Amino acid sequence: SGLVHVKNPYLDSMEEDVLYHLDLGTKTHNLPAMFGDIKFVCVGGSPNRMRAFAQFMHKELGLAGDGEDLADICAGTDRYAMYRAGPVLSISHGMGIPSISIMLHELIKLLHHAKCRDVTIIRIGTSGGLGIEAGSVVITDTAVDSSFKPRFEQVVLDDVVVRSTELDTDLTEELLACSKEIPDFPTLIGHTMCTYDFYEGQGRLDGALCSFSSEKKLEYLKRAYDAGVRNIEMESTAFAALCGLCGLKGESSLTPAL
Amino acid sequence: SGLVHVKNPYLDSMEEDVLYHLDLGTKTHNLPAMFGDIKFVCVGGSPNRMRAFAQFMHKELGLAGDGEDLADICAGTDRYAMYRAGPVLSISHGMGIPSISIMLHELIKLLHHAKCRDVTIIRIGTSGGLGIEAGSVVITDTAVDSSFKPRFEQVVLDDVVVRSTELDTDLTEELLACSKEIPDFPTLIGHTMCTYDFYEGQGRLDGALCSFSSEKKLEYLKRAYDAGVRNIEMESTAFAALCGLCGLKGESSLTPAL
Repeated sequence: SGLVHVKNPYLDSMEEDVLYHLDLGTKTHNLPAMFGDIKFVCVGGSPNRMRAFAQFMHKELGLAGDGEDLADICAGTDRYAMYRAGPVLSISHGMGIPSISIMLHELIKLLHHAKCRDVTIIRIGTSGGLGIEAGSVVITDTAVDSSFKPRFEQVVLDDVVVRSTELDTDLTEELLACSKEIPDFPTLIGHTMCTYDFYEGQGRLDGALCSFSSEKKLEYLKRAYDAGVRNIEMESTAFAALCGLCGLKGESSLTPAL
Repeated sequence: SGLVHVKNPYLDSMEEDVLYHLDLGTKTHNLPAMFGDIKFVCVGGSPNRMRAFAQFMHKELGLAGDGEDLADICAGTDRYAMYRAGPVLSISHGMGIPSISIMLHELIKLLHHAKCRDVTIIRIGTSGGLGIEAGSVVITDTAVDSSFKPRFEQVVLDDVVVRSTELDTDLTEELLACSKEIPDFPTLIGHTMCTYDFYEGQGRLDGALCSFSSEKKLEYLKRAYDAGVRNIEMESTAFAALCGLCGLKGESSLTPAL
């Protein structure tokens, strides 16, 4: 049917669903009217960059007006920012798995309440490249954890549930084909490693704590490269797991900063 | 000495330390002049609330001006917001352990470079109360994980390191004594549980995914209560572990929303 699947038997019997961190709700907003025609959702960490992306999309799509004064749909909260340009929604998710998870739970419910169909979601945040040219775009085929395994461990109450982190193969190929139409735009397909920590978790030598040697760091990053990892960030496993479970065609395509 | 301890042998030999997510650095900013007299750091999730808190402190401390136009010291980035009122720094940390960890690494280095002494850090974010009056303030004695254990598991490269999450006992008592001076301000000392997820991790029945029954949720929350947990949030274990390791007198004091 192309609809988004929420997997929560309680949801449809609730009198009202407040999407608290988005400052939206089923009683306060007409979600089908506001969002029913959304076909693409692009997400990234920084609110300013997601506004700039929406402005860019506004111009690319040739929409009326200069797009400079796009309103933040979540203006009532400072947890996330949300903009739209035609059928494209652009949302910030902050940094790390817990932060993107809250946003995705509420976004998935939003798309469900709005009865959206055939929605594609793409993460376009930054990442650190591994053994690739600076500025390259990595289109993620599989998100892996810090042990290079394609899994996301979700704690449900106090049980650990392991979820798959594969992304949509067709979308991966489609995005790669798009990249070939643009000259000087180095793009590749690879695994994306997702960590819970930026400093100790990604082998950085410049955090407040550093207990490993430069050699041990390089050995770890080499093992990651050999396992197929081409970039490192902090959201992809949760993104892949949640989108996969809810029937959203998801892709994580990132610009390594290096 | 009261100085903040960074535990990184590489740091002092670095020519420049860029605190990237704070948009500050040792070459671009005179950190001792800007921050050398800081004695208190208060942190919370929301940037708007941390600005409001700095404005409140500005008035409470009787500083010159009305405090309405406090500048965001991290204005060059939208990752975090930082304000100061006299010796008090007020910083946002976003949501979840990965987000607060990045901020704390860079804050600890900032306090180190600025040669600050005897700094007290207090997290004043929101949380969900457990079996307590709505609006109560819980002063955390120990942060616990989703299994109610006083530990923080930090992944360092691909090793798991277990860290202690105890907080400063003297500060806990001092804060409780302060609360008694204010009438109608329900305050208690208890354990704070820290989860990686807001919906499935905290037993909510209104996420996009929910695989447990209402009974199973209540049974889990009852076990948490019986283990001494009085509120639930998403940052305290990492906060306690990092502050403890770096010699910052830390406390996590939170207002449950219920």
